[in-house]
Amino acid sequence: MKAIALIGGPIDLWPQKLKEIIDKNQNEIIIGVDRGALYLLELGIIPDIAIGDFDSLKPDELLEIEKKVLDIRYSNPIKDYTDTESMLKTALIDYNVEKLQIYGATGGRLDHFLSTLFTVINPEFNKYAEKVELIDQQNKIIFYNPGSYRVPNELEYKYFGVIILNKIRKLNIKNARYDLKSYNTDFPYSFASNEFLPESKYFDLSFDKGNVAIIYSKDIKRFNNL
Amino acid sequence: MKAIALIGGPIDLWPQKLKEIIDKNQNEIIIGVDRGALYLLELGIIPDIAIGDFDSLKPDELLEIEKKVLDIRYSNPIKDYTDTESMLKTALIDYNVEKLQIYGATGGRLDHFLSTLFTVINPEFNKYAEKVELIDQQNKIIFYNPGSYRVPNELEYKYFGVIILNKIRKLNIKNARYDLKSYNTDFPYSFASNEFLPESKYFDLSFDKGNVAIIYSKDIKRFNNL
Repeated sequence: MKAIALIGGPIDLWPQKLKEIIDKNQNEIIIGVDRGALYLLELGIIPDIAIGDFDSLKPDELLEIEKKVLDIRYSNPIKDYTDTESMLKTALIDYNVEKLQIYGATGGRLDHFLSTLFTVINPEFNKYAEKVELIDQQNKIIFYNPGSYRVPNELEYKYFGVIILNKIRKLNIKNARYDLKSYNTDFPYSFASNEFLPESKYFDLSFDKGNVAIIYSKDIKRFNNL
Repeated sequence: MKAIALIGGPIDLWPQKLKEIIDKNQNEIIIGVDRGALYLLELGIIPDIAIGDFDSLKPDELLEIEKKVLDIRYSNPIKDYTDTESMLKTALIDYNVEKLQIYGATGGRLDHFLSTLFTVINPEFNKYAEKVELIDQQNKIIFYNPGSYRVPNELEYKYFGVIILNKIRKLNIKNARYDLKSYNTDFPYSFASNEFLPESKYFDLSFDKGNVAIIYSKDIKRFNNL
């Protein structure tokens, strides 16, 4: 089983067809996190689970969620788990899903975005990292734990970045536009704007220690007129 | 002296009054990075320095920059320094500025944003980290190296996040809504949505090892109608 979660980030950064994407996955677990639960209702989608402290919602907005969503998991603003952590826990541990696709996690307040990005690789959730994807209008982020991989070319995106999230040992990138051999660092680093070789179905990634995110991305026109 | 740099990120994430902000700083060093140089010209501002490979610009756009900007530093797409690294080097090392305010670094392609965020704390630039600010419409990011600080309350922003960027020792947050005592971790982590105490001018931050970013942030309405 798969889970799709919608967090409360800016809706103008959603992929254009988010409603269609979620509609196609009606049989999977749909989770609304905080304001994301309300956004789902506004899209005409009733989430299976709503998670959050809902403190940014007006009383009638929360009432709407309480009327329609069967499984609501209230969290406390002063708490052990953040809303995103509760969502990861629910999907990855309680439901043991094979894949968790998260929308609405980017843009807006950057402490929130980084919270989601880093939570995926923190010790409690690290072993599930390869199941998680963060997706917005022009980026898709996936995660790898140490090992050797063929990272698939996703034709929708022109670029990929290799993001070192912590102390890394023997990082190799092969069969890409910019290769890298046995790279070590104790600092996070983002190798941006790499590309797949023409007609290549994958590039080779390997490393011995640390956490890596691959960010597929593309350029899009967004209000780029002054 | 101070430097203001504009990178080529989405312009809809700029602070609303970016032109006025830069106009007020005409006597400081104005740097345009890649498409950021073109954006400055379109705002009626001639940057002192333009840095980039400019490979995303059309020939007539590049010509416009070459006609108007006196100091152009071309970088090579296959290179030792990224455009952002070249900009940091120019401002922080060559010009030894007291402060470097970077706009246009957020949003859009997230490998680019993380590249800028992480470059600030990488060994070559780390000692200058406390001079750097990344600013967009709803966030301001500043950096701290190990030590004890009073982090000033900036009234424009409601929240602050404490972002651990790498292995940290004895992190203390005091006199804030959510305090933290002698926290250690080997993983990046974002403590989001903290707040200053009412009428407080600062909170106390200290740590022995590692790198911390403070992200001031606020909620804004952005196309939030479905």
